[in-house]
Amino acid sequence: MNSLTLLAYMSQIKPRDELFYQQAKARQQILTKPPQSLGRLEELSCEIAAASRTLQPNLSQRSVLIFAGDHGVTEEGISAYPREVTAQMLSNFAAGGAAINALSRTVGASLLVVDVGVAAERRHAPNLRTRRVADGTQNFAKRPAMSEEQSLRAIEIGREIVQEEISRGVTCFAIGEMGIGNTTSASAITAALTGLSPREVTGRGTGLSDDIYTHKIEVIEAALRLHQPRTPLEILQCVGGLEIAAMVGAYLEIASNQKIGIFDGFISSAAAALAVSLCPDARSYLFASHRSVEPGHRALLSLLGREPLFDLQMRLGEGSGAALAMPILEAAVATFTQMATFEEAKIASS
Amino acid sequence: MNSLTLLAYMSQIKPRDELFYQQAKARQQILTKPPQSLGRLEELSCEIAAASRTLQPNLSQRSVLIFAGDHGVTEEGISAYPREVTAQMLSNFAAGGAAINALSRTVGASLLVVDVGVAAERRHAPNLRTRRVADGTQNFAKRPAMSEEQSLRAIEIGREIVQEEISRGVTCFAIGEMGIGNTTSASAITAALTGLSPREVTGRGTGLSDDIYTHKIEVIEAALRLHQPRTPLEILQCVGGLEIAAMVGAYLEIASNQKIGIFDGFISSAAAALAVSLCPDARSYLFASHRSVEPGHRALLSLLGREPLFDLQMRLGEGSGAALAMPILEAAVATFTQMATFEEAKIASS
Repeated sequence: MNSLTLLAYMSQIKPRDELFYQQAKARQQILTKPPQSLGRLEELSCEIAAASRTLQPNLSQRSVLIFAGDHGVTEEGISAYPREVTAQMLSNFAAGGAAINALSRTVGASLLVVDVGVAAERRHAPNLRTRRVADGTQNFAKRPAMSEEQSLRAIEIGREIVQEEISRGVTCFAIGEMGIGNTTSASAITAALTGLSPREVTGRGTGLSDDIYTHKIEVIEAALRLHQPRTPLEILQCVGGLEIAAMVGAYLEIASNQKIGIFDGFISSAAAALAVSLCPDARSYLFASHRSVEPGHRALLSLLGREPLFDLQMRLGEGSGAALAMPILEAAVATFTQMATFEEAKIASS
Repeated sequence: MNSLTLLAYMSQIKPRDELFYQQAKARQQILTKPPQSLGRLEELSCEIAAASRTLQPNLSQRSVLIFAGDHGVTEEGISAYPREVTAQMLSNFAAGGAAINALSRTVGASLLVVDVGVAAERRHAPNLRTRRVADGTQNFAKRPAMSEEQSLRAIEIGREIVQEEISRGVTCFAIGEMGIGNTTSASAITAALTGLSPREVTGRGTGLSDDIYTHKIEVIEAALRLHQPRTPLEILQCVGGLEIAAMVGAYLEIASNQKIGIFDGFISSAAAALAVSLCPDARSYLFASHRSVEPGHRALLSLLGREPLFDLQMRLGEGSGAALAMPILEAAVATFTQMATFEEAKIASS
């Protein structure tokens, strides 16, 4: 895939179907409840019907995808954890001991981890796909994180994984990530996409001291001055990550297949924002989950035009918030598809 | 049961166990995630461990209980729906066509409807228990809603139902209600419990016109002047409802058995606030779900000392918000009980 084939591919992604949206809206009015009493669940059900082109959406086949990659910028000392933790967490996902393992079980979703560029020995596990583009990105404080070819290849891997999942019946995806250093990447992407300053969109990641926090902002400021990325693809290539590129591909493929994607916290949302900047019509298929503690997340949600469904002060990544949103989307669809109408139930409608 | 045996019963309800709380807090620090990165899920897991007296809480057996009753105050024309809708909705619950049927299935909970005082022909259905104390309450604009005996009997029914559910293994309850006119009752209870004016705590229920809304407030003001209830039991008896009394009993029995109860929106929370006013130690066992659109709900949450987990602008009742909170509490427990520690997973802890 080159950037021209990517453009051609994106041009066939269509927005949601307004006719299904209107039909769903009309049906919500005749279900056995006071009008609007299910609040945001009602609007969600209409948006999902319009995205899925059916008044009987089915979100029962659920998949949590975690894309993992290492970041050369960790050389700059911007993270509270050493880079090795990315690979160690991959082992933890494989062994079933991470938060997202427990959360996936709770919400009835399968979990698949995709190593797009972890800088460590290859591992083998039933829920792990190794599709390494490189052993981590380059240090973007000094040079672009990826070559154009690498970023396009990582996008393609995200697309391929989603295709595989769809071919086994998945209709609803939670998109998460693992990569020590990737909040630095997400802040740089957010600043570049929104025009906000790095200081406004940079947080303390997984728990930074004042000194490291200040240094993290300086690294991002300097990188954006160095690379001056203009287009979403340039931003991705210069200050992104392999797992972020793969998530961009995953979101595009979800949209292309008119399935439902849920973005997670800051990093997953940065990838969604890149996908929607590349292809605005992909937005119809991508839903917010939680509001992250990371300050840049608010700017991304605004760019994505989505309100989070809950705020539990989470900032873990791994797709944890997106997984927790699955029962809420399921509830929206279940009430919409399973409830009786006033006429069916012989109830006075007011 | 008389009011003295109720007092004796409540005196044996103990608060949560602080030792389990501290042990749970300590365990949260060594699980494979950055500290506090699971946000409110972490605190929830510790509170549930402390309430359940175990570091292995199990919320997998879940029950949604709906208590239903009619309200004499509907004679005053304070509701958008005719009183008959309470009974019609009971049929809808029995037939599986209501929102809460779909939501219970979504969250893996059983659903049981308890008719504590619906003013209609008796119905029979597998998920319906008929335990009528009266054919609805009296019109509290003119006389107390219930006699002392009736309110105590309804409390007892709530306790008995929870006992039955616990004896078949239920550990986690969502407490909901159905009763046309019961937002008027809940507003009166909230005003009486908090000292706020009826205007501050009265909303438009399931969609009232300006005229009916103003009248609803006047009815509540007049009723509180008429009855001048002082204690929680007097408030319940004078302006409460049979289903509200049964919910009070359900909450107390959940606390007495050290199980987990989730309150729903305005009416369910008014009953929880009565239960906690009667027995402050019951609070450890009762968890908030959503923030309702009803303006009085905020005052009740404050009295209950609980922050809602989400705000989806719901105002349906039926236990709908409480049911949706079940996967969130389950997620809190699942991450706590299933995650590996840094040592087990051989991960650098920072």
